[in-house]
Amino acid sequence: MDFKELINARRSVNFFDSARGVPENLLREMVAMASQAPSSFNLQPWSLIVVKDPERKKRLQKLAWDQPKVSEAPVILIVLADRDAWQSGHPFVERNFQEMIRAGMMTEEQRDWFKNARESLYGYSDDARQAFANKNSGFFTMGLMLAAKSLGLETHPMDGFDLEGVRREFSIPENYWVPLLLAVGYFKDTESLAPPKWRKTYDEIVVNFK
Amino acid sequence: MDFKELINARRSVNFFDSARGVPENLLREMVAMASQAPSSFNLQPWSLIVVKDPERKKRLQKLAWDQPKVSEAPVILIVLADRDAWQSGHPFVERNFQEMIRAGMMTEEQRDWFKNARESLYGYSDDARQAFANKNSGFFTMGLMLAAKSLGLETHPMDGFDLEGVRREFSIPENYWVPLLLAVGYFKDTESLAPPKWRKTYDEIVVNFK
Repeated sequence: MDFKELINARRSVNFFDSARGVPENLLREMVAMASQAPSSFNLQPWSLIVVKDPERKKRLQKLAWDQPKVSEAPVILIVLADRDAWQSGHPFVERNFQEMIRAGMMTEEQRDWFKNARESLYGYSDDARQAFANKNSGFFTMGLMLAAKSLGLETHPMDGFDLEGVRREFSIPENYWVPLLLAVGYFKDTESLAPPKWRKTYDEIVVNFK
Repeated sequence: MDFKELINARRSVNFFDSARGVPENLLREMVAMASQAPSSFNLQPWSLIVVKDPERKKRLQKLAWDQPKVSEAPVILIVLADRDAWQSGHPFVERNFQEMIRAGMMTEEQRDWFKNARESLYGYSDDARQAFANKNSGFFTMGLMLAAKSLGLETHPMDGFDLEGVRREFSIPENYWVPLLLAVGYFKDTESLAPPKWRKTYDEIVVNFK
């Protein structure tokens, strides 16, 4: 399947075959592909909580507008966006700097330059910090959905949940925003899929203000 | 090229062949593929300003840490994330509602339900509004980068720019955040590409707090 076919074939499906689990190797492969997404200074501010346990899924379903697919899908990924993943002292920021030195892309002398760059772009407002975490996690999540489809799996990204309730239930620290829940599994083939929804055209997407 | 090859082959390239433009039909095809990204209630809160004019690119380069690729790439897309694209009265929100009625997925009686759903998810804080706009624009942008690669084009997503400066230069209204600039073009094949940067592993991405 070429990319055009793949992106057209990806759908947000409502019906998952709850009898058919997602093999661990496929889940790992899906995440490995998605992890190739680019990110701001390669800071990769994304994490996942993998929810498979039926009891945990039931509790999550109650926090997600009681949508049946939360329990029916064999895997729910809670996508996390780390709003602090640009801060000095964050373990992956230091790791990132060391990896760049090792690759010859930065020198130890550039530590201050790198710190100032991160602070000037992501540290100046809550909006900047939130945008940093969410856009990069968006890149990663789009990769997850397309990778899943390429492996024969289906997904459904969900916004309809009580973010603070999910935070409490899964003890998610404050530095993470929860952009979405992603249901993953196989399509329940006794159901049928609604036709694709409309999309804005090129001429509706491209704008000009001057 | 299958998806795994494609996502591994996508790189953020620093060198563009400034003599080789992006044909209009390829740019349109790239955007059409990316527009298939899912979004919150299909609200598609993304727009693009297409910058090709050398003088406009020069002004943009000055606002983007003077990075030469801003002028060298034949096309710079200014990606916009509409923080108000869930609000009642927004033209695409009303269009969306009418399209859902037409598709039999909602009824006119659900207008209040739909309004309350949007307001409860995106209207309760600046953080919620910013996450809505940026995660969805992240889905779209990842689609742009992969679609470009599938068409033989290269891209580079850029964070290093003066957001308020770009807003003024292009008269971008306050409702839009500017998540990134995306350089698009062909690779300058007299240059060589650095090896891919490190990525977090599955076990570094998956977390659990309880």
